[in-house]
Amino acid sequence: MSLVVVGSMAFDAIETPFGKSDKIVGGAGTYIAWCASNFTPVKQISVVGGDFPQAELDALTNRKVDLEGVQIKKDEKTFFWSGRYHMDMNTRDTLDTQLNVLANFEPVVPETYQDCDFLMLGNLVPAVQASVIAQMKKRPKLIVMDTMNFWMEIAMDDLRKTISMVDVLMVNDSEARQLSGDYSLVRAAATIMKMGPKYLIIKKGEHGALLFHDNQVFFAPALPLEDVFDPTGAGDTFAGGFMGHLAKTGDISFENMKTAIIVGSAMASYCVERFGTERLREITKADIDNRLAEFVQLVNFDIDLVG
Amino acid sequence: MSLVVVGSMAFDAIETPFGKSDKIVGGAGTYIAWCASNFTPVKQISVVGGDFPQAELDALTNRKVDLEGVQIKKDEKTFFWSGRYHMDMNTRDTLDTQLNVLANFEPVVPETYQDCDFLMLGNLVPAVQASVIAQMKKRPKLIVMDTMNFWMEIAMDDLRKTISMVDVLMVNDSEARQLSGDYSLVRAAATIMKMGPKYLIIKKGEHGALLFHDNQVFFAPALPLEDVFDPTGAGDTFAGGFMGHLAKTGDISFENMKTAIIVGSAMASYCVERFGTERLREITKADIDNRLAEFVQLVNFDIDLVG
Repeated sequence: MSLVVVGSMAFDAIETPFGKSDKIVGGAGTYIAWCASNFTPVKQISVVGGDFPQAELDALTNRKVDLEGVQIKKDEKTFFWSGRYHMDMNTRDTLDTQLNVLANFEPVVPETYQDCDFLMLGNLVPAVQASVIAQMKKRPKLIVMDTMNFWMEIAMDDLRKTISMVDVLMVNDSEARQLSGDYSLVRAAATIMKMGPKYLIIKKGEHGALLFHDNQVFFAPALPLEDVFDPTGAGDTFAGGFMGHLAKTGDISFENMKTAIIVGSAMASYCVERFGTERLREITKADIDNRLAEFVQLVNFDIDLVG
Repeated sequence: MSLVVVGSMAFDAIETPFGKSDKIVGGAGTYIAWCASNFTPVKQISVVGGDFPQAELDALTNRKVDLEGVQIKKDEKTFFWSGRYHMDMNTRDTLDTQLNVLANFEPVVPETYQDCDFLMLGNLVPAVQASVIAQMKKRPKLIVMDTMNFWMEIAMDDLRKTISMVDVLMVNDSEARQLSGDYSLVRAAATIMKMGPKYLIIKKGEHGALLFHDNQVFFAPALPLEDVFDPTGAGDTFAGGFMGHLAKTGDISFENMKTAIIVGSAMASYCVERFGTERLREITKADIDNRLAEFVQLVNFDIDLVG
C-alpha cells in the first residue's frame, strides 16, 4: 500500500569516539526513505537547497522513491546539523544547526500522493507535520509521527495538537518522561495515549524499544553489537523499517506492529554500523533476512519447559 | 536435581524514592533461597548471628530449604547493610556496612550436601566461594557464580581465580565493563569468557539481561512495571529463578538456559514490587505462571510475515 514520508533531507557533520565524518547527507526523511524503500515504494515530501547533490536524489529515484513532493530551492542552502556523541552513544551535543531551507518550509502534497494509505511524519516542526495531515483529502489508514524534546521546549501547543491527530507516536524514553511528566514509562505511556495516539513506541536506543497499546505491551531488543559506530539516523531508520513493513503488508494489527518493530530494529542495527546512510545503501534483501533471523535467535525461548 | 546455595543472610535497611524500610531480612543467600525453593529443594550454606530471627529460619525450613549448612554464631551479630537508591533505581549509595559474622566466615559443606548437581555461589568474598567449590568431592554439573565490583577493587586476584573455576558468571553491565576493560558488552563478554566461564550473563536491571555462550547471544527483557518499589535482591532473585529452573529440569543446554533466564526475570519482576523478600513470600505457582505468560506476550512475534 502507498507510503508517504515527510522529513528533512540534510547535511550532517558527525563526531563520535570512533571518528569524524565529512559533511555527509542525512536528515530524518533521507534515512526513512533509504530504509522503507527496501519494503515498499515511497512518496517523499521534503525540501533541499541548490547545494544538495543531484546524484543523491537520483540514487533515491533509483530506489523507487518518488521525489515529486521534494522542493528544490536553487538559491538557498540545505539544512545543516553538526553534533558530537559521547562514549555511551546515547547522548550527544549539538555543535551547530543551520535551518536554511527548513526555516520557511511549507510542504505541498502532490495530487499523485493523495491515494496515501500510510503517512510517516518524520521529526519536523509540529505545525509542518500537521499541515501535511490537513492536506490529505482522505485520512490515511495509519498516521505515524516521530518527534523530539526540542519541540516540547519551544512549540508544546502545536506539538500537542499534532499528537492528537496521529495513530502512532514515536519518542525516546527521556522524551516520553518529559511529555508525560512521569518517570515510570508504563504510566508515561498511559498518559501519552490519552493525548490521542492509540499506539505509543518508546525508543530506548541500545536498550531496545517498547510498543504500547491499550493494556498491551511488546518489547523489541536492540541487537547487541561490538561497536555502535554512528547512531545518527538510527531512530529514523527504525521508523522507516516499521512503516515499510506495515505498508508492504497492509496489516495494521497489533500483532503485525510487533513484527514491524522487529524489522525496524533490524534495519537500525545496520544503520549504526557506518557513518550516515552508508550501510543502508549497501545492504541486500539477504542481509535483512539474515539479521531478522538473528533477532529470532536473540529473543526466542521455549516456555513449555516450565511447568 | 540437588541445588546447593552459598550466600549471605543479612539485615538490610533500605531507602528508596518511595519510602524507607525498617531493619529487614535480606542477603543474597536469603533471596536466592526464597526464589529457588519455588522450583526445587535448596541446601543452604551461610552464617548468621544470634540476633537472626528463628522464625525466619523456620519459614525457610517450611519451604524445603535445608539449613544444615547455615552456621549460627550465638554471640555474634548478623551481617548488616544499609543503602539508599536514586530515582533511576539503577544506582545506589551504601550508607553502612557491618560485616559482623561475615568477617571470618569459613563455610563448611555438610556431608549430606555432597550429592550436589547444581552449585549457586551468591555474591560473597571470592575466596569463600572458591572454598566451597574446593570442598565438593565431586565437581557439580553446573557451577554458577554471582559477584560485584567491590571484589574487583579489593580482591581481583582471588576473584580471577574463582571465576576460572565456574561455568556461568553473572555480573551487571558496569561490572562486565570493569572486569574486561572494554566498553562494548559484546567484546567484554568475549574477554570474560576467556577467563574461564563458558557462559556469561550480563544483568542490565530495568533493561533486561543478556546470555552469552560461544558466538551465541540471548536477550531477556525486564517486565515494564509501573513502579520499581525496591530493587534490593532483584539480581539474587534472578539468580535463584535461573538456577531453580535449571536444577528442576536438570537440563543445562543453551536452549534451556534461555528459558531459565526468563524464569529469573519473571521472579525478579515480583521481587521489586515490595520491600525486601515480602513479595517473594506471598506469590503462588499461579502467579509465577501468569507472569511467565506475560513474558511470552512481551517478546513473542511472528516473523513469517516478513518475506
